[in-house]
Amino acid sequence: MQAAILAIGDELVLGQTVDSNSAYLSAELARLGVMTRHHHTVADDRADVAAAFRWAAGEAELIIATGGLGPTDDDLTRDGLADAMGVELVCDVASVRHIQAFFRLRGRPMPDRNRVQAWHPAGSSMIPNPNGTAPGIAATIGRARVFVMPGVPSEMFAMWADAVRPQVEADLAASPSAGSTILTAKVNTFGKGESDVAQLLGDLMKRDRNPLVGTTVSEGIVSVRIRSQFSDAAAAHRELADTIAQVEAHLGPIVFGRDDDTLADKVVALLKEHGRTIATAESCTGGLVGKMLTDVAGSSAVYQGGWVTYSNAMKSSQLGVPPELIAEHGTVSEPVARAMATGAVAHSGADLGVGVTGIAGPDGGSPDKPVGTVWVALAHRDRANPPDTPAATDALLFILPGDRRAVRDRSAKCALQMVRFHLLGVPLSEIRWARRTRTG
Amino acid sequence: MQAAILAIGDELVLGQTVDSNSAYLSAELARLGVMTRHHHTVADDRADVAAAFRWAAGEAELIIATGGLGPTDDDLTRDGLADAMGVELVCDVASVRHIQAFFRLRGRPMPDRNRVQAWHPAGSSMIPNPNGTAPGIAATIGRARVFVMPGVPSEMFAMWADAVRPQVEADLAASPSAGSTILTAKVNTFGKGESDVAQLLGDLMKRDRNPLVGTTVSEGIVSVRIRSQFSDAAAAHRELADTIAQVEAHLGPIVFGRDDDTLADKVVALLKEHGRTIATAESCTGGLVGKMLTDVAGSSAVYQGGWVTYSNAMKSSQLGVPPELIAEHGTVSEPVARAMATGAVAHSGADLGVGVTGIAGPDGGSPDKPVGTVWVALAHRDRANPPDTPAATDALLFILPGDRRAVRDRSAKCALQMVRFHLLGVPLSEIRWARRTRTG
Repeated sequence: MQAAILAIGDELVLGQTVDSNSAYLSAELARLGVMTRHHHTVADDRADVAAAFRWAAGEAELIIATGGLGPTDDDLTRDGLADAMGVELVCDVASVRHIQAFFRLRGRPMPDRNRVQAWHPAGSSMIPNPNGTAPGIAATIGRARVFVMPGVPSEMFAMWADAVRPQVEADLAASPSAGSTILTAKVNTFGKGESDVAQLLGDLMKRDRNPLVGTTVSEGIVSVRIRSQFSDAAAAHRELADTIAQVEAHLGPIVFGRDDDTLADKVVALLKEHGRTIATAESCTGGLVGKMLTDVAGSSAVYQGGWVTYSNAMKSSQLGVPPELIAEHGTVSEPVARAMATGAVAHSGADLGVGVTGIAGPDGGSPDKPVGTVWVALAHRDRANPPDTPAATDALLFILPGDRRAVRDRSAKCALQMVRFHLLGVPLSEIRWARRTRTG
Repeated sequence: MQAAILAIGDELVLGQTVDSNSAYLSAELARLGVMTRHHHTVADDRADVAAAFRWAAGEAELIIATGGLGPTDDDLTRDGLADAMGVELVCDVASVRHIQAFFRLRGRPMPDRNRVQAWHPAGSSMIPNPNGTAPGIAATIGRARVFVMPGVPSEMFAMWADAVRPQVEADLAASPSAGSTILTAKVNTFGKGESDVAQLLGDLMKRDRNPLVGTTVSEGIVSVRIRSQFSDAAAAHRELADTIAQVEAHLGPIVFGRDDDTLADKVVALLKEHGRTIATAESCTGGLVGKMLTDVAGSSAVYQGGWVTYSNAMKSSQLGVPPELIAEHGTVSEPVARAMATGAVAHSGADLGVGVTGIAGPDGGSPDKPVGTVWVALAHRDRANPPDTPAATDALLFILPGDRRAVRDRSAKCALQMVRFHLLGVPLSEIRWARRTRTG
């Protein structure tokens, strides 16, 4: 089975929005062993949309389209699809009720224009959208299966996972000519650069190897991509697992997870496993470490909370960082980071405390402390000690590259990787971005 | 002149890389008055690449392609383009010397495999690449102009600006039907759904209008896209400005900015303008409001800091929320949100305090308080009052759709829009997502 992916929207062909849906869907299809041959993007133009559907139906057995299902006059995917199918639009009563219920739940009447979202080409069926007003559409054009989903990524993700992917899987299982199996996996690392990771992987990255191993970087996370393609499904699975194990063995503790795992997912899971709690004291990251931890559902079991002590006054009044310490060493300094981490533990009662202070830029740098200078400290209490024993602290200095957004993002990830290493008993020296390591 | 953009690469159709080149080129072309009709992405497959060029030549007068010009066996754009042109590849001696010089500058001999990068279809010309080893290619297929550039964004940006854009501009100037000017703008809103925005825009959204007005939603932000196309550049500018003014007049205070402006940008700017400071007290958003505010460079002038009081114990110990209040009304309740906001003001000395408490899901919902129930409170001190006067508070109840990530994101944006409305003196009832408004 081969697929074509259509993305529909003026904002895409005008370059106002980068289409990430098509890449997401391609990756999902690859996981199912379906090769995507084409991505095609067209404007909200009824004739162009119809032509794109017709063309795709000649190229692929599976067509997945996103966008143009909204309630406004420039949402023409329904019409274009009907034209390509050579049918009229009909109204789906159940979908009208669903859209009405969506608004009722939010205490508002359904605007009249939303009614258009319940229309779909005759002979197609609608796919419920639990997260929005635009139902999807399942149809056929000739021998091609067609699925249309909303362009809003969160709605598309949910509809894909709940309704479309299961249907594609069922179609694949029913196919008599079930082809070769393509399996992909990602091994995610944080703490070394891409070329260091490539060097550690060595021959595993040879281009004629199967499973094929490559690397990509995104937001400081170096991911090792593995693609296993065998005619025998069992071999594809076995070889994938074997290569994953080799990759993990070569890379060591900087590997924090697979596929969509985040550092925060792993930190929260480890804290639960060890029965430990954590609190955060953030300056330059401004709440980002807390945000990442609380991205994880169920983090309330281990995350007590934290402070965003953006001003020095708040560092002192809320965390007890002595003003003299700030005056002597500066806000961005090892003693202040340690005092913030210790204060977070002392004032929250958590077992672990993270303190982050740095210069995110664009202003505030100096020759001594350039933009990207970040101190991260970790305070940890040993429960064997009497409760009034001061927490021990580790501290690392990072000199991080990139702009304000990048420095803040990497600072938060450095902090999370430090917590993870601490919980696993891995020496912090394994974090190679750090310029200096001290424990005390 | 109409354009088609091709992106070539296995990593794109496998979904391992998001194609941002095509959006970049579309935006650049729109600035020159060239409308992009299609983006098309294909794998590193000689036949698919040739078919894509042939198809594009039938659809557009300008074809811009990126990718597949590297030195390895899977770089087949040269071959595919030659097939589409019906010619052979020939070697360009000057390009061989350029590639050799590129390696010499880096103290390395040219690997043999890089020699292939100097080959190009007979009848085409090569475009120098100062930033890498892959020269670009300028060619024609029938009446279509073709430019091929490397897929590495930094090399593509430089080649576009140095060589391809000037050539497209020259072609446009030489064209007897000298092109029109296309200008685009985005007006960003938060607080009403897409269909409500469309209803307010009314006839402005008619599909035969010029400037053309459309809407898109991304992360809860409804953006109004405006596209002004006139043969006279002055008219394009004048009409764009006029339509922007009409859109803003129709939509009122939910409009917070243009183009890449964020809500936090505007809140920070307004706080500076009014000489006011702010502090945050977050529960379900876990630091996200602080993160958004501190995304803005220079936010330290107005943002004192905040608390992530994820546990009830921290709400009481750090913000002085009475435990009885939590016991009586629940963590997610109007009185607790107000007490958090008041506590943030009292403990930070800031002029404004934001309190956010809600149920982000996936767990923790109940029939009474479903997932998505969020209370946001804003405490504000009047400087005319004696310092010990309690802060006044406003509070809004939101029932937000979507998953955990969406609920948290929208909660933070609701909080920022509340702050913005307060600073502008706009009634909070203008935030229509809110179920209930109370000031006290």
